[in-house]
Amino acid sequence: MAEPLPDLIEEFVSDTPIEDPAAIVTALAAQDDVYIASLLESLPVERRRAVWEGVPRDRKLDVLVEMRSDPREILIDGTEDHEWSAIFSDIEAEDLLELLDSLPNRLVDLAYAELDAQQQDYFREATAFDDAQVGHWLNHDLLVLPLNAKVREGLRLVRRQVPNHCDSIFLVNRSGQFSAAVKVTRLLSAPEHLPLVELTEDNVSVLKGTDESTSASLAVQRSGLASLPVVDDNNKLIGRLDIGSASELVNEFYERQVMASAGMDEDEDLFSPVAKSARNRAVWLGINLLTAFMASWFIGLFEGTLQQVVALAVLMPVVASMGGIAGSQTLTLIVRGLALGQVTSANFRALMIKELKVGGVNGVIWAIVIGIVAYFWFTDVMLGLVICLAILFNIVAAALAGVFLPVILDKLKIDPALSGSVILTTVTDIVGFVAFLGLGTLFLL
Amino acid sequence: MAEPLPDLIEEFVSDTPIEDPAAIVTALAAQDDVYIASLLESLPVERRRAVWEGVPRDRKLDVLVEMRSDPREILIDGTEDHEWSAIFSDIEAEDLLELLDSLPNRLVDLAYAELDAQQQDYFREATAFDDAQVGHWLNHDLLVLPLNAKVREGLRLVRRQVPNHCDSIFLVNRSGQFSAAVKVTRLLSAPEHLPLVELTEDNVSVLKGTDESTSASLAVQRSGLASLPVVDDNNKLIGRLDIGSASELVNEFYERQVMASAGMDEDEDLFSPVAKSARNRAVWLGINLLTAFMASWFIGLFEGTLQQVVALAVLMPVVASMGGIAGSQTLTLIVRGLALGQVTSANFRALMIKELKVGGVNGVIWAIVIGIVAYFWFTDVMLGLVICLAILFNIVAAALAGVFLPVILDKLKIDPALSGSVILTTVTDIVGFVAFLGLGTLFLL
Repeated sequence: MAEPLPDLIEEFVSDTPIEDPAAIVTALAAQDDVYIASLLESLPVERRRAVWEGVPRDRKLDVLVEMRSDPREILIDGTEDHEWSAIFSDIEAEDLLELLDSLPNRLVDLAYAELDAQQQDYFREATAFDDAQVGHWLNHDLLVLPLNAKVREGLRLVRRQVPNHCDSIFLVNRSGQFSAAVKVTRLLSAPEHLPLVELTEDNVSVLKGTDESTSASLAVQRSGLASLPVVDDNNKLIGRLDIGSASELVNEFYERQVMASAGMDEDEDLFSPVAKSARNRAVWLGINLLTAFMASWFIGLFEGTLQQVVALAVLMPVVASMGGIAGSQTLTLIVRGLALGQVTSANFRALMIKELKVGGVNGVIWAIVIGIVAYFWFTDVMLGLVICLAILFNIVAAALAGVFLPVILDKLKIDPALSGSVILTTVTDIVGFVAFLGLGTLFLL
Repeated sequence: MAEPLPDLIEEFVSDTPIEDPAAIVTALAAQDDVYIASLLESLPVERRRAVWEGVPRDRKLDVLVEMRSDPREILIDGTEDHEWSAIFSDIEAEDLLELLDSLPNRLVDLAYAELDAQQQDYFREATAFDDAQVGHWLNHDLLVLPLNAKVREGLRLVRRQVPNHCDSIFLVNRSGQFSAAVKVTRLLSAPEHLPLVELTEDNVSVLKGTDESTSASLAVQRSGLASLPVVDDNNKLIGRLDIGSASELVNEFYERQVMASAGMDEDEDLFSPVAKSARNRAVWLGINLLTAFMASWFIGLFEGTLQQVVALAVLMPVVASMGGIAGSQTLTLIVRGLALGQVTSANFRALMIKELKVGGVNGVIWAIVIGIVAYFWFTDVMLGLVICLAILFNIVAAALAGVFLPVILDKLKIDPALSGSVILTTVTDIVGFVAFLGLGTLFLL
């Protein structure tokens, strides 16, 4: 078994870390590429560069491929020019596609030149699709036979070599169109002269190169097969999407959702340089500042009221935050439903009614609780009534915003996981402040 | 190809939906279990029950297994008692384990009684592990041979049957301990009398039944193999974790993270009954209310100041929300790092320093911007200076809280993805309000 990650981080980051290049090489030799990639991501930049020097040159490409873009770029920047031709010596189209975002153009050209003619074709074909499409992530290592092939030919093919995550032979007609799939293991017990078409699998989903990559990847994960065939617009077989790539794409999709909730992307580096990290995050802080100032501006409309009833200022955060939480619960549920194709125009109305009811119930309950607390705190019945109404109003408005916002953003092709929560809390802040201070102005002055 | 999900949702939810049971049966016949499960989750409760009636009885079990707990429980509650023995007639241990959370005890007993003796053993063995451990999710469908077996015996074994997502024969010694793995496809081109030990794979990771299920599942996804062997404490082979289950476990892990950010769990139903949904969410709203009241209490300490300088009340949300956003960025990054094992005590100090620097840079920049805006808005130099200092202070405090909180929660075995953001915003709210109003009291009165 490989040494667990934390132990090796410890050795490399401790106060007297391994500095001897030979010792680093030895420590890394027992580890696989994924492990080394994860280790490098976990190290502060200086240490990361030192350990990178200890990665054998013939493994550097495989390690880079396994890393996230941001931490990987730091290593690419720190690698000297003369090293690259050795690193790229065995590169394939698939590797170059993985690294594409992180390599400067001159290195892309250098790597491209190292590809053989077929790999260059694969690379060009893949880049004709954008990276949210299945066609960008094709595996070209296929077992293919003509539709009229027999078990004998199938066995001859699989005896040569079976690629990773490949459990089926794809049968194509004379135009190269996908016709059917036969599991490799079915050949083993079949008579040699049997036509392969007698052994085909039922209900194999066929993917299109232009299909969206996350939903296609989920289809692969659910298929029970190791890969699904991918065709072009004319149904011609152009490759397969294997469950290894599919899992990576699904995991990236989820990481994007998790990181988007804080306005970051999934390639964010634990130890990115301070200037870069500060710049990335400043954008989100700036957007948030605009929305915060908008909320302040609305509060400012009620300066006179606040001056006379200072309890309103004290209780403002309660109104705003209850709306924000209630809204984000609805939003999160709808965003997931949209991503999985479970929220559509057909069930939208039913969803809205259900969320309004949930908002209504929680609105009433918490409005009463908060009204009573406010009454006892400030011994003021009218203040209790005002906050009670404001909370009810804001929680119901939050439910509506939580249902409508992501659907509208989705229609506008804006990622609701990224921008939904900022816009939502802007809405709930402003509705909350205006309702609370507005009712306060009416009833408390 | 199967009909896309939205179309069928449309047919079943539209104003004149399919009500004829025979028509529902026909519409569902062409769809696979995963699809029907997803469709049922997308339907309002009444429609969901009607469509459920149209699912053929011999597919009901497979559909239930593919559903999330909450929507599934509604269907289980609505299924009549006499139907269950037919639904459970072909049940296996794996299915019962999937349904365990959703079935009332009497149905668990009924299903258990339908298992044959071996499946009952598997079920009992699995439930000896908790569901966050690999042992709970074992696949017992294995290709196993003794360590001294030859290719001939391997071929005989795989000609009988190869299970899904199984690409290797596991070799065990006389005590049943796992020794090595041989890929099935390597048998095809090997001489019949060759010992299998000559064909073993290098570096196959071995999982323990007590391993944490998410990291073990990631190991399967990264292995390039269709499954990894799982052993007990004595290294005895007890099963395998296949890439199908592994992908489901990883996806569930990520969904838990996404939903946790809004205080929900991954089984939340789009159309759960209003009372249940309101109750689930009320807990989170209640926790949030306590923290909001704490923040209000701190504001209340400065009532006198607020009465005299009402501009402070107007600008309060800006100070609090900038701290909240900055903190949640750090928190999200650290929570992901903890989940992937990339944040440890070894690199914690380096991480803290980096996040403090990022917080310092953004703190200074936005403190100046906000100070200037506040100055021009209220034409008050001192007010600009007060908010400038409060913002700087709060963003730096937010960075510290964002680094320390998840690590402390993790040590206390509390999920930082769930509770981290509530505690963090409580901290940044209180620090922000106290810094801003405290400085205001010192310099503006």
